[in-house]
Amino acid sequence: MRLHVILRYIGMVMLLNAAFIFISFLISFYHRDSGQLPLLFSFLITLLWGIFPLVFVPKTTNLFNKEGYLVVVLSWILSCFFGSLPFLLYGGEFTFVKALFESVSGYTTTGASILNNVEALPKGILFWRSSMHWIGGVGIVVFVLIVLPSLGKAQMTLSKMEISPLAQEDFKFRTRKMLNIILVVYVGLTALEVILLKIFGMSLFDAINHAFATVATGGFSTKNTSIASFNSVPIELTIIVFMFLSGIHFGLLYSTLTLKKKNIFTSPIVRYYFIATIIGIVLVTFNLHGKVYSSWSESLRYASFQVVSLSTTTGFANADSSIWPPFSILIILFFTIQCACAGSTSGGMKLDRVFIFLKALKGQIKKLQHPQAVIPVRIGNKTISEDIINSVVLFIVFYILILFISTLLLTALGYDTLTSFSATAACIGNAGPGFGLVGSLSNYSTLSNPALIILSFVMLLGRLEIFGLLLLFMVKSWR
Amino acid sequence: MRLHVILRYIGMVMLLNAAFIFISFLISFYHRDSGQLPLLFSFLITLLWGIFPLVFVPKTTNLFNKEGYLVVVLSWILSCFFGSLPFLLYGGEFTFVKALFESVSGYTTTGASILNNVEALPKGILFWRSSMHWIGGVGIVVFVLIVLPSLGKAQMTLSKMEISPLAQEDFKFRTRKMLNIILVVYVGLTALEVILLKIFGMSLFDAINHAFATVATGGFSTKNTSIASFNSVPIELTIIVFMFLSGIHFGLLYSTLTLKKKNIFTSPIVRYYFIATIIGIVLVTFNLHGKVYSSWSESLRYASFQVVSLSTTTGFANADSSIWPPFSILIILFFTIQCACAGSTSGGMKLDRVFIFLKALKGQIKKLQHPQAVIPVRIGNKTISEDIINSVVLFIVFYILILFISTLLLTALGYDTLTSFSATAACIGNAGPGFGLVGSLSNYSTLSNPALIILSFVMLLGRLEIFGLLLLFMVKSWR
Ligand SMILES: [K+]
Ligand SMILES: [K+]
Repeated sequence: MRLHVILRYIGMVMLLNAAFIFISFLISFYHRDSGQLPLLFSFLITLLWGIFPLVFVPKTTNLFNKEGYLVVVLSWILSCFFGSLPFLLYGGEFTFVKALFESVSGYTTTGASILNNVEALPKGILFWRSSMHWIGGVGIVVFVLIVLPSLGKAQMTLSKMEISPLAQEDFKFRTRKMLNIILVVYVGLTALEVILLKIFGMSLFDAINHAFATVATGGFSTKNTSIASFNSVPIELTIIVFMFLSGIHFGLLYSTLTLKKKNIFTSPIVRYYFIATIIGIVLVTFNLHGKVYSSWSESLRYASFQVVSLSTTTGFANADSSIWPPFSILIILFFTIQCACAGSTSGGMKLDRVFIFLKALKGQIKKLQHPQAVIPVRIGNKTISEDIINSVVLFIVFYILILFISTLLLTALGYDTLTSFSATAACIGNAGPGFGLVGSLSNYSTLSNPALIILSFVMLLGRLEIFGLLLLFMVKSWR
Repeated sequence: MRLHVILRYIGMVMLLNAAFIFISFLISFYHRDSGQLPLLFSFLITLLWGIFPLVFVPKTTNLFNKEGYLVVVLSWILSCFFGSLPFLLYGGEFTFVKALFESVSGYTTTGASILNNVEALPKGILFWRSSMHWIGGVGIVVFVLIVLPSLGKAQMTLSKMEISPLAQEDFKFRTRKMLNIILVVYVGLTALEVILLKIFGMSLFDAINHAFATVATGGFSTKNTSIASFNSVPIELTIIVFMFLSGIHFGLLYSTLTLKKKNIFTSPIVRYYFIATIIGIVLVTFNLHGKVYSSWSESLRYASFQVVSLSTTTGFANADSSIWPPFSILIILFFTIQCACAGSTSGGMKLDRVFIFLKALKGQIKKLQHPQAVIPVRIGNKTISEDIINSVVLFIVFYILILFISTLLLTALGYDTLTSFSATAACIGNAGPGFGLVGSLSNYSTLSNPALIILSFVMLLGRLEIFGLLLLFMVKSWR
């Protein structure tokens, strides 16, 4: 373990942060708003932390796998601290804990906010909020596609859970070249969405901010009432499409663009993702019709946006789903827990795992009918090993256990069950909005400091796929 | 598959039912109450159904494993129909669906009741309600200790999930002799509890009814306000002890009585059961103190009774836990889902599975620290195979999935989330009371027919350990 090498790489991440804080500063400078000084100070502090190891540590090109892991995880945690500086220095609604919560929420692309009045923020600070999402999204792609699969023997324990088996076997992501190309897809999606949102009537500033938040499946908006404030069907349709795309494995998106055989149209996981989303939309639409909205078109409009928003763990809102009937709430909670595909910027349990569970269950039931038969679990034409199934299902139960424990802690702090459960589900899934006190058009401002600290930890736990964070606390594995 | 042999055995079960209906009739006859005619008619119908195959089918001593399975499962389902006859003929609060629900609830030892006024029932009908629990309890012991482990090759799929690995490996339950001895333990526990309850002030009638409901972990009471109506600490303590004992593997209880080395004091699963229960009681006591009860002794009294009652899936109540804080409700819901030991009359997921999951999770985390090491999962000095872990964890997720689907169906019928979820958890776990509309001192009378039908099915699903019922629908496996 070469600590200086690790510091040098973390420094480079800090410089990336510094660059975006500087852009935010320029925006505030242009508007002559109250974000200027906080952003300038934050830029200088972050810049120094970034430059220091870069100057004193000699360049190293080779990075061991475990070092790579530490670089990404520590970068994430340090970014959360440095990223909160602009909020803390700006003040306003931000206390120390709230600034940290907003920052963790930004980098983990959760998008849960403690702000009552987002629109009161200076433009530079608003841009910095969205930038955290976008940087976090890059971090996720690097973490999931390079770091997790590279953890040597621990790969057996981690990557088999972290990466879609499709991805693991059909793509060679670990080369930097490939990663760069994937990041081009990430940038490309963002650029395309900015253009479309601008065409459909957003200001350039709003378009960039919302594109950042969509592609990273983050969910921070520049408006108090999120996407509802634009009240525009074309904008909502654009965002639905880009949210859905951002929930797909980025490598798969790339291979689709380059017309490879393995693409989003042949992938069984994407097919499951698509069908599950459609079923969810249909169920919620039927439930809303007559109960919340009188017309079918309205029911479909709000159901489709909210279902896609939560299933991709973006968390944008075009309606207040807190007042929807329990059936719709449960469906949306299910999607908040299942989430979208591994290898995307989305959070949560990942539907790959749910898909593997369903396949394994089908196999188990077939075994009841044909006790003698050996029934392999297949996805596409790949056989999933017992070992993978075992850890996938174990992960699901562990995920649900953590969900339960965090819910329990929040109820112990005095919150009601729906708020506690949905806030936990929304935070561990990096989705953002829940129900009850933390509904889709509401925010986390009323929660106490202990609750916000628990939820910050839960957001990081979810983002680093639980075991990714647990690994940090296992001293023995670093020898 | 010899249908006539199966019918003969089912007939014997019907005769057992008929015998208890006759006793119930005698009680009603003694009291000259309105239960006489309904019970007499039901007795005659059940008797005929029982005697018919006994007369016409020659005696067969050998029973194939699959036939044994069909005998038990079909006996259960037929008993539920015949058992509802006395209710249906008596009328009162019973409609067709409600009578069937009460009967399913009785035989599956769920103890969920649709009655608002239990005390208005004639004594004979009351005794029949408790008898269904007691007969159901015998059925569970036979099903879990003989039938499931005997399903030939399907044993690999079923019994490894159904039976505590301890039981599977250390006891030879399948001999009838051994089973008879275990039933003696069952009868012995019942008799002992009757004596103690009588000593502590219950009438003989109440003592017998409550002993039946305790040892079968059923929960039907002869009083509207369940155990609360006696308001007696010695009675509550007696019931706590017998509920706890009835949650332990009956084979283990027997080997403890005969001073074998494997006993309840050396079993790691019983240790986990004991410790988990204590932790639950402590957490709920602390949560209740100051919020619901002002004294520590009251908090402990109500917490310990309700936690043991739900963790053993008995479902007796000495307080209205519906008004308890969310934290206590969640703890109790956790125990309603985890439940007690395999091989007991308790329902639900069985804590053996939760215990195996926790052990497997510990192994997985150890693997993160020592990627090269092979870490076997052990319980006591037995190694649990990957195969067992796999199906145990798969079962847990499947259980949670069914929990979710049934909750969703109930919310679709218009019920609130807490009622829907807790009613499902209480029914699939064969526990009885939930929260919301179906709280511990409340009942299921306000639910609509579709809801009662869904929950009846869910009770059977839980009682037959899900796969046990699914197997019935798999025509192929019967060829
Ligand atoms: K999000
Ligand atoms: K019960």
